Amino acid sequence: MRILFVGFGVVGQGLAELLLERRQLLAAEYGLDWQAVGIADAQKGSCYLPAGIDLGAALEAAAHGVSLASLPGGCDLDALTMIRQADADVLCEATWTDIRTAEPATSHLRAALERGMHVVTTNKGPLALHYHELAALAAERRVEFLFEGTVMAGTPLLNLRRECLAGSGIQAVAGIFNGTTNYILTRMEEGLPYAEALAQAQQLGYAEAVPDADVLGHDALAKVTILANVVFGAHLTPADSPCQGITGVTPEDIARARAEGQRYKLIGRVWREGEEVRAQVAPELVPLTHPLAGVTGATNAATFTTAALGEVTVVGPGAGRRPTGYAMLNDLLHIWRRQR
Amino acid sequence: MRILFVGFGVVGQGLAELLLERRQLLAAEYGLDWQAVGIADAQKGSCYLPAGIDLGAALEAAAHGVSLASLPGGCDLDALTMIRQADADVLCEATWTDIRTAEPATSHLRAALERGMHVVTTNKGPLALHYHELAALAAERRVEFLFEGTVMAGTPLLNLRRECLAGSGIQAVAGIFNGTTNYILTRMEEGLPYAEALAQAQQLGYAEAVPDADVLGHDALAKVTILANVVFGAHLTPADSPCQGITGVTPEDIARARAEGQRYKLIGRVWREGEEVRAQVAPELVPLTHPLAGVTGATNAATFTTAALGEVTVVGPGAGRRPTGYAMLNDLLHIWRRQR
Repeated sequence: MRILFVGFGVVGQGLAELLLERRQLLAAEYGLDWQAVGIADAQKGSCYLPAGIDLGAALEAAAHGVSLASLPGGCDLDALTMIRQADADVLCEATWTDIRTAEPATSHLRAALERGMHVVTTNKGPLALHYHELAALAAERRVEFLFEGTVMAGTPLLNLRRECLAGSGIQAVAGIFNGTTNYILTRMEEGLPYAEALAQAQQLGYAEAVPDADVLGHDALAKVTILANVVFGAHLTPADSPCQGITGVTPEDIARARAEGQRYKLIGRVWREGEEVRAQVAPELVPLTHPLAGVTGATNAATFTTAALGEVTVVGPGAGRRPTGYAMLNDLLHIWRRQR
Repeated sequence: MRILFVGFGVVGQGLAELLLERRQLLAAEYGLDWQAVGIADAQKGSCYLPAGIDLGAALEAAAHGVSLASLPGGCDLDALTMIRQADADVLCEATWTDIRTAEPATSHLRAALERGMHVVTTNKGPLALHYHELAALAAERRVEFLFEGTVMAGTPLLNLRRECLAGSGIQAVAGIFNGTTNYILTRMEEGLPYAEALAQAQQLGYAEAVPDADVLGHDALAKVTILANVVFGAHLTPADSPCQGITGVTPEDIARARAEGQRYKLIGRVWREGEEVRAQVAPELVPLTHPLAGVTGATNAATFTTAALGEVTVVGPGAGRRPTGYAMLNDLLHIWRRQR
């Protein structure tokens, strides 16, 4: 399996580390033999070698701020040109999400799919804004288009739904899709005021200096939009659904909820209402007896409501180098096993 | 897909109901066209029609205590004979678990696999006692041998591990694999003495009149043994692992745990220790911050500890007509999709 990396930040490097660490295991258990043929990263430079680049050396270079162009195969190809020229089986796209334009990721995915390359991505932008177009293109070219890492990192969610909840009659999905806000709410429940809890989240690297995408609910909304379109076949963009963050939740609200055996969680929710698919993000009171109530810190979780099984909840990491890198590895293994 | 039912109790009927209810959806979404060619049940009688029996009529007969032999295709074939003669693609085996002998289920599975029939089962016996033999036979005949329903009913666990945690480096699995004891512990935490909590569980149909298999931990041990063998490649039988039930847990223990921010759960656990695979069942103190602590009532849950993702927990039903029937439906869909 000839892999092309576009975007070699935290996630791309996480995937590279897992591929290297687990090389023998992947060969022994799944017969997977892989080769990285190229990397293109707007900041870190590019390299391309049809015979296979040295992925360990690329990780080393990235760790020391050395340009990838200095490696064997080093070149000045931009991502789009490399996608259009590379001899690769699958594109692993892990550039930074721009939820307004979904670029340059969408152009990367289109170019790869048009060439008949499988695509694996962790970028929420193309999924939240152009899912149906890209899925149709993949179907037309008979290639796989997988994106487990766009929601809850490598914690099984989209692949869980496709493989393990097939035919179960999914009626709704509700979950904690943003670890930063869940961390802040957890700290607030322990008595910290919002500003201090946010500062702690920023110190730990959970929250950005400008935390709006998290605390206003936009990150969760992007993920909920992906679920609406992928799981329920809706044609929603983030702008179509109501979205409320956690900035209005006060310590008094939290104390009152606690006294009533409930807990505030920022819940993203998708459900069918007659012929319509609805989605929203809002702080909700969750009873302590519900599995989502027990999800503390930066952990994510989702509850599927199904006709056959009732409620099934999955809890796990929602971000991070290795968990998100693993999402891509799981998608790669799915492609590999489908080919055989 | 030509399906043969052996065992037409609660689980077999649950599968039949789901297949009938979801017939159009399964055809539209997965292209699955199925036919039930036969049913053999030691109590309810047998029927076999290569052109397809009327599964709705069979459910009706079962509901009214009418022998299946009175239906079109009615016959007096026993299960083993029918498996050896039927023209079917897949055996759905859902007879009653005998954890000591694993019979007659093991003979049913062997006979089907030897004929090159795919096998789906919910019977814990053959898995806990003869997994490697049966898996080798299935591999030799190049057919699928699937058994999601043996642990946690249709809540994704074995299929989750196979599809969604492939290559993640699973180091341990720990979970609540018996709903009856979890229900009893939940009631005890609310203040009921053990005997009353057990009586309630019996009234609700969770516990048998002789509750030993549940309360002594044997049911959980069978499931943990399956995980040890399937997930970790061990060669364990239930007798190889320590097993302690909940009968020694007192209201005082529970109150003391509660005061310390912990909760007693009957935890089944499998892990690697050097070259060895260890398994056990015992009441454990779980901190309230862990996802397993929040699992109340008859619900089941399992936490996978992985190298790539850290902990991933799945929570859902562990028993029941439709949840266990769905486990078989999910396995059938996997077989169907692998064939195409």
